[in-house]
Amino acid sequence: MALQPSLAEALSKIRAADAELRAFASTLDEPSAVALASRLTGPLAGQLVAVKDIFDTADLPTCYGSPIYAGHRPASDAAIVGILRRAGALVIGKSATTEFAYLEPAPTRNPAAPGCTPGGSSAGSAAAVAAGLVPLAVGSQTGGSTIRPASYCGIVGFKPSFDVLPTAGMKCFSWSLDTVGLFARSVREVAMFAQAVSGSRVVPQPPRAPGAWVVGVPDGYPWGELSPSAREAMGRGVESLRQAGARVVHCTLPSWAADAFAAHDIVQGWEAVRSLAHEMDTAANLFSALLRDYLGASLQISDEAYARAQEVSARARAQCGEWLPGIDVLLTPSAPDEPPAGYATTGTSTFNRAWTLLSAPCIGVPGALGVNARPMGLQIIAPPGRDDVCLAAGGLLERALQAA
Amino acid sequence: MALQPSLAEALSKIRAADAELRAFASTLDEPSAVALASRLTGPLAGQLVAVKDIFDTADLPTCYGSPIYAGHRPASDAAIVGILRRAGALVIGKSATTEFAYLEPAPTRNPAAPGCTPGGSSAGSAAAVAAGLVPLAVGSQTGGSTIRPASYCGIVGFKPSFDVLPTAGMKCFSWSLDTVGLFARSVREVAMFAQAVSGSRVVPQPPRAPGAWVVGVPDGYPWGELSPSAREAMGRGVESLRQAGARVVHCTLPSWAADAFAAHDIVQGWEAVRSLAHEMDTAANLFSALLRDYLGASLQISDEAYARAQEVSARARAQCGEWLPGIDVLLTPSAPDEPPAGYATTGTSTFNRAWTLLSAPCIGVPGALGVNARPMGLQIIAPPGRDDVCLAAGGLLERALQAA
Repeated sequence: MALQPSLAEALSKIRAADAELRAFASTLDEPSAVALASRLTGPLAGQLVAVKDIFDTADLPTCYGSPIYAGHRPASDAAIVGILRRAGALVIGKSATTEFAYLEPAPTRNPAAPGCTPGGSSAGSAAAVAAGLVPLAVGSQTGGSTIRPASYCGIVGFKPSFDVLPTAGMKCFSWSLDTVGLFARSVREVAMFAQAVSGSRVVPQPPRAPGAWVVGVPDGYPWGELSPSAREAMGRGVESLRQAGARVVHCTLPSWAADAFAAHDIVQGWEAVRSLAHEMDTAANLFSALLRDYLGASLQISDEAYARAQEVSARARAQCGEWLPGIDVLLTPSAPDEPPAGYATTGTSTFNRAWTLLSAPCIGVPGALGVNARPMGLQIIAPPGRDDVCLAAGGLLERALQAA
Repeated sequence: MALQPSLAEALSKIRAADAELRAFASTLDEPSAVALASRLTGPLAGQLVAVKDIFDTADLPTCYGSPIYAGHRPASDAAIVGILRRAGALVIGKSATTEFAYLEPAPTRNPAAPGCTPGGSSAGSAAAVAAGLVPLAVGSQTGGSTIRPASYCGIVGFKPSFDVLPTAGMKCFSWSLDTVGLFARSVREVAMFAQAVSGSRVVPQPPRAPGAWVVGVPDGYPWGELSPSAREAMGRGVESLRQAGARVVHCTLPSWAADAFAAHDIVQGWEAVRSLAHEMDTAANLFSALLRDYLGASLQISDEAYARAQEVSARARAQCGEWLPGIDVLLTPSAPDEPPAGYATTGTSTFNRAWTLLSAPCIGVPGALGVNARPMGLQIIAPPGRDDVCLAAGGLLERALQAA
């Protein structure tokens, strides 16, 4: 079979760029890619997709970013990979992840901010899309692992409500929090992607007139102050939305936001030491110090503390479902700051954790900059289950930022 | 290290019984079991547990009931296995499952009804507990795969609300429906088991006086008529509860029950062809005819039909959350009939499917019999999220049946 020129080009572009970018943990070889591509039909037919190396694939190594799994080849595919195949997408490669999607950095560089971290944990997915190597990528978010790297790499990231996309076959870190995330370069593309992989469960609302939107801007955050870059980005976002005709109002985050933020740590820690029990018991010497220390400390979380944190979570989720009266969506920074310089840290998930636990859909939209002119994303947050509203408001923000 | 006599005895009892019972797909060898047991501490320390062979284990083969996975050894443990290990349980073996937890029978026999199916899909887990080979077992339920085999084998089965126990590392059939289930010989034991593996999230309510309970008995079921055995079992259950002092009232199942039942088929089918996409594409010749036909037919379910079924599910779940006014729990048969004679079928999940989709906790309690004097379980169903109420009402029913 003759090699399709576009696929060959895409693969050689990936190979050429990735020597430095290191966004990919592995890629298909050309004959396999061509053979696969010839059989694919569906709404994503012909689309190249990178899948974070935290999801099992039978035809590509899956190492979860850990030397424990060097060369590991799962027997089957994660459910999201099965969805991609049935939708006609070509999973062209596995994108680099931090170790088990925790905080030890991946080797990936940031194509949008030279010398800076691409963020984590979905570092490779965000960088591959930002560098134009693939139009679409799959990542995950347990704390802020989709919205943060999208912010740092200047692209769009979408974290849906729980249960919209399946985590089966994803290496588990915290089963109550793990969420599949999506990346693209525009809100339109990420919305098309979400519609295809959700089996049309997520369909963006028809566009509303900008004047019909009420966007809430929190007066403060239980997880910390705004950095100068975050203030600058928020100023630009608010100004753009107002110029576009939207109503932007100040609001106070109800107590459920702080409750969710506090519960996140305990839920994640208790579950991580059980999800990774086998690795802790048999290969802890191959953990990074960061992860080893985290798991060691998390072993101290009692069942009772976990049960209380889950109770708090359930209550906070129910309260968040009632949302903020008169407000359609919230606008916050995607991350506390610009991407930090260097590669020692992937940044922090403080602006994302509570929304992950609350199952509130979030879309990170690029277009603002921080004080050092590095990418600084803005995040639209919608009520749990209103992924359609989230995507529509993301489109509003994107258009507003582009027009401003 | 000296062999602990009780562990050696337990293992030789399993080996002796299992030649005929065929409840186990694999068991630990004695040295491995002894080495493991010596290191275990926690609320389940010393408890032997069988885990359905649909959950990954690194130290035992995991074949999902399919020849495609003959000899398969996963690289890690499912999350529920990590929980069991951290709670001190000894996973002594993998219990037989139907093929991918669908309908093709496992080789297991029914220790409580000679010559009859043990049910499915958690056939081995139910039979191993019923035969007294292990006190506790883990299974799963996507349709009726916990409550039905518990009914056929005359033991207690518990299917909690969604998200109480993790499905990570369980071979996925339908990510929106797959639920971890538990087996034991008494309500007290299953409640202790649920408390331990849920990290104390599920704690049975303190016993209430029987007179403080209102138990609803549906006038009819959207999924079919009562068989003579089911009528007989229900009569015994109602009479026993009344004698114990509980109030038993007739009620009509709201429309959300029928809606959930109808949506179940579509949700499961659309998700199964994606969960098993890799196997369909590479090894369909190794499927049973039953599964191959099911997946082939399910390929025809459109995205739009799936999205509509998920919308119906979400609405039905919200309405079920409001429950039936004035009623604490529902009482229904666990299965439509006694275990069918022979091994050609595992029976049907009609009395369970809707509750699985609705995330309503169910406990199956033995103690009644059908017209052929085979086991016929009764099922208590509580509002979604009220696993504590479910277990407490299960205790009420168990005591009532034993006293009658």
